Amino acid sequence: MKVAIIGGGVIGGGWAARLRHNGIPVFVADPDPQAPQKMDTVLAHAAHAMAALTAAPVPPLATVEFVPLATAVVDADWIIESVPERLDLKQQLFAEIEKIAPPGAVITSSTSGLRPSVLQAQMQHPQRLLVAHPFNPVYLLPLVELVGGAQTNATIIARAADFYESLGMHALLIKKEEDAFIADRLLEAVWRESLWLVKDGVATTAEIDDAIRFGFGLRWAQMGLFETYRTAGGDGGMRHFLRQFGPCLKWPWTKLMDTPELDESLIEKIAAQSDAQSGGYSIGELERFRDDNLIAILHGLRANHWGAGKTLAKWEAKLWQTKSNSAPAAKPLQMFVRHAPKHWMDYNGHMNESRYLECFSDATDAFMRQIGADEQYVADGFSYFTVETHIRHLQEVCVGDKIIAETQVLPSTGKKLRLFHWLKNSSGEIYATGEHLLIHVNLQTRRACEPLPAVANTAANFAAAHSSLPKPEGALA
Amino acid sequence: MKVAIIGGGVIGGGWAARLRHNGIPVFVADPDPQAPQKMDTVLAHAAHAMAALTAAPVPPLATVEFVPLATAVVDADWIIESVPERLDLKQQLFAEIEKIAPPGAVITSSTSGLRPSVLQAQMQHPQRLLVAHPFNPVYLLPLVELVGGAQTNATIIARAADFYESLGMHALLIKKEEDAFIADRLLEAVWRESLWLVKDGVATTAEIDDAIRFGFGLRWAQMGLFETYRTAGGDGGMRHFLRQFGPCLKWPWTKLMDTPELDESLIEKIAAQSDAQSGGYSIGELERFRDDNLIAILHGLRANHWGAGKTLAKWEAKLWQTKSNSAPAAKPLQMFVRHAPKHWMDYNGHMNESRYLECFSDATDAFMRQIGADEQYVADGFSYFTVETHIRHLQEVCVGDKIIAETQVLPSTGKKLRLFHWLKNSSGEIYATGEHLLIHVNLQTRRACEPLPAVANTAANFAAAHSSLPKPEGALA
Repeated sequence: MKVAIIGGGVIGGGWAARLRHNGIPVFVADPDPQAPQKMDTVLAHAAHAMAALTAAPVPPLATVEFVPLATAVVDADWIIESVPERLDLKQQLFAEIEKIAPPGAVITSSTSGLRPSVLQAQMQHPQRLLVAHPFNPVYLLPLVELVGGAQTNATIIARAADFYESLGMHALLIKKEEDAFIADRLLEAVWRESLWLVKDGVATTAEIDDAIRFGFGLRWAQMGLFETYRTAGGDGGMRHFLRQFGPCLKWPWTKLMDTPELDESLIEKIAAQSDAQSGGYSIGELERFRDDNLIAILHGLRANHWGAGKTLAKWEAKLWQTKSNSAPAAKPLQMFVRHAPKHWMDYNGHMNESRYLECFSDATDAFMRQIGADEQYVADGFSYFTVETHIRHLQEVCVGDKIIAETQVLPSTGKKLRLFHWLKNSSGEIYATGEHLLIHVNLQTRRACEPLPAVANTAANFAAAHSSLPKPEGALA
Repeated sequence: MKVAIIGGGVIGGGWAARLRHNGIPVFVADPDPQAPQKMDTVLAHAAHAMAALTAAPVPPLATVEFVPLATAVVDADWIIESVPERLDLKQQLFAEIEKIAPPGAVITSSTSGLRPSVLQAQMQHPQRLLVAHPFNPVYLLPLVELVGGAQTNATIIARAADFYESLGMHALLIKKEEDAFIADRLLEAVWRESLWLVKDGVATTAEIDDAIRFGFGLRWAQMGLFETYRTAGGDGGMRHFLRQFGPCLKWPWTKLMDTPELDESLIEKIAAQSDAQSGGYSIGELERFRDDNLIAILHGLRANHWGAGKTLAKWEAKLWQTKSNSAPAAKPLQMFVRHAPKHWMDYNGHMNESRYLECFSDATDAFMRQIGADEQYVADGFSYFTVETHIRHLQEVCVGDKIIAETQVLPSTGKKLRLFHWLKNSSGEIYATGEHLLIHVNLQTRRACEPLPAVANTAANFAAAHSSLPKPEGALA
C-alpha cells in the first residue's frame, strides 16, 4: 500500500507518524522548505510516545520520505490532504492530484470542517473523496471522523473505516454533512464562548483551562456529554434530566442564544437515543464505571505530577503528615489500609501481580516516613533502593477487596535494610508476603552509602524492637 | 466544625461524601422523604471510590445525619445550599436560614449559574454568602468555582479557598461575576450545540459522546483549551494559532454566531495570558507533557476496558496475533521490546519497582501466547497464576529507557511452570531478573489442575529445549 500525504504540518506529520508506526511507508509533499524539519519534530515526539504506549510487537518502523507532489501521488493507493483550511487551495490541489494519481486512489481530506460535497464539487472522480478528520496528536488520539459528500461512494467510506481501525483508530461515521461535523462544532462553540470570557475579563486563559481540566475535562476523557448527564440524572435518567434543565435554555448562560425548542418530541428523541446508547446499564452501574475510570485517570495523572493528579497527591501528602509516628515496639507496624481499584485487575479476574508489588512498595514508602527517610530526606539527596524482592501469593485479591499492609523489620545493619511485608484481609488472612532487601544510596552518585544518623538510629531502633519477633513464615533471610 | 447541607440530591450527597471522608460530620436537611435513600446511594458510591482512590491515612469516616432545617443550621459554621436551580426557592431558603443560623456562619450556594449578587440581594448578612460550585461526582472531581457577589466579604472567599483545598479540591477564584461563571458557560454552549446536532439529525447522543471521549475529551483531562491550542500552534505559539484560526470565527461552524471581534487587541490579550500561563515551557516540552499524560490516561482506561483504552487494547491484540510463534530452541525467547513511560517513574527518579514486575508479568503473558494459553484458553476457563516471585534489581531503568524482555523456561512439569525473565537494555546489560513459579488453574474452581494437552505439550517442548541452557545467574530453583 502506498500512502501520500500532502501537507506536512502538525496534522500531516501526525498522520505520517501513525502510519509509519503501523508499518506503512509514507511519501510527503510540501513546498515549505521548513516542512522536513517540522515533520522531524512531530516524528520524534511520536516515536517517544509510541515506544512508551505499548509492548505489543509493532511492525518495523516504516519510512517517511519527502518527494515532489507528482512523485507522491503518481502510484498512490491512498492520498491524505492536510493543507491549510482554504477551500480554493484544497480544490486546486485536488485538480492537480487528479491529473497524476490513478483514478482508483482514495483521496481523504483532513479538514476540520469544510463539507466533502463542496470539496469534491469540481473533481473528475468525486466518488473517491471523503473527509477523514483526525485529532492532534494524531498518533495518540484514536478519533477520526469520516464524512462522505453527496457524490462519495459508500464502499469507499466502509473501506476507510476498516483502514483507520487497522491503524488503532476509532472511526466515527457521520451520517449527515454539516459544516465542522460533530467534534469541531462543539469545539468551536467552546472556543467562541472562551473568547468572550477573555474579552469580557471574566477569566484568563489559565482560569478557563483550569475550569476544564480540574472538572468536566476529566469526565469527558471517558464518558461524553449525554452519558455523563444521564448518570447525573439519577434513576429518572435522561428524561428527568431534560425536564429539569430545560428551562436553563432560556437563560443567558452562554452567548449561544439561538437554541432549539426543547419540546416533547426533542426530549423523546434524545431520551430514546440515550436509552439505546446506555440503557444496557443501570444508573448505578454507570456511576461505578465513571468513578472507576476517574480513579484510573487520577492515578495516571498523579504519577505524572500533573493537573488533577497533583491536587490528589497534595491532599495525600497532607494526610500522611497527620499520621503520628509509631514508637518502635515488639509488634509489626500497620502501614496502610486500602481497597483494590478496578484498573488493578487483570484478565484472570483478580489483582495483577504487579499491583501486589505496588502495595509492597507503598508499604516500604510508609516505613520510610516512619524512620524519617521522607520527602525532605530525598530532596536532600538520600534514599533507599530495593535490590531484591521475594513475593509469595497465597490468596487472590479481587476488585474492591480491603488490603491491610503490615511490616516487620528483619535483621538489618548499616546500609542494608530488610523488610518483610504482609498484605492481609480484614480477617487477618494473608493475601501475600513480600520480603525486600533495600540499600541506602546517595542520589547524586547513585551509589550505596551509610544513612544519615537520625535515619540510621530510627531504623536500628525498629530492627532492635522487632528482633524479638519470630522470623515470619516464608521469610528467606 | 459543624457543616449543614440543605438539599440532599446528587450534589448535596456529593458534598456530604467529600466532607465525611475528610472527617467532617454533616447534618443534612431535605424535606423529600426519599432523600435519605438517595443519599445512601451516593455515599455508597463515594465510599467505594474513596477506598480505591488512596492508601493515605484518611480520617475516620464522619457521620451524615438527616435533621430538620432548624437543627441543621442553628449552630452551624458552614452551610451548603444545594437545592434546585430556582432563584425564589434559594432566596426564600436563605431568609429562613438567617432567622436561625448564627450571623457568622458562612453560607455557600452550589448553584451552577445564578449570580451571588442576586442570591444575596435580600439577605440580612449578605457578606457571608458566596457561590462554591462543585462538579459531579463531587467526591472525585477536584474543581470548585468560588464566586463572590457585590456584597461578599473577601476574607470569607479566602477562607473558603483554604477550606476546599483542605478537602483535596482545586479552588478556582472567579474575579468577575457572570451568569454560569466559567465551566457552565462552556458546558452550556456545548449542550446547546449538541441539542441542535440531535434535533437536526446530524448525530445521535452516542455519536456526540464518542466524538468527545475518543478525541478532545482525552486532551481536556489534562490540558484545557488554550494550552492545547498553544501546543498545536507549534513554535509560533498562541499568536500564530489565533491568526490562523481567526477567519473561522466568521464561518457557520456552530450555532453560536455572535462572536467577539478577534482584533489585534484581543489577540494580544490572549497571547499574553497564554504566555503567562504556559510560557515557562517550550512547545516541545508541552507536547511531551501532553503525550505522557495521554499515555497515562490511555493505560488507565485500557485496564478498565473502556473507551479509548479499549481501542488501544484491540489494536494491541491484533498486533500480538501477527507475532509468529517461535519454535522451541535452545535459546531464551525475546518476549517484547518497550520503553519506560513517564508515569512509571517514582520519587527516586527511576522506574518504580512495581513496574519491573509489570514487565515480568507482560513477559509471562507473552510466553502464555507462545504456548497457546491465550485469550481463548482463558475464555475456556483455564489459566496460570503466579504463586512465587523472586526479583533482583541490578540497574536502574529511567524514563524512556528501552527494555528488552527475554525468557528461559526452567525445569517444569505438569501443573508447575517455572519462568526466568531478564529485562535488558539494548547493549544486553541486565536491568533486573525475575524468577516465577506459576501454577495451572481451573478458573471456575480457582484450584490447581493439569493444563489441557496442547498447552501442556508446548510448555514441555520449551522446557525440554531450554533444559540444555545453563541455569541463569541468580536463579534460585
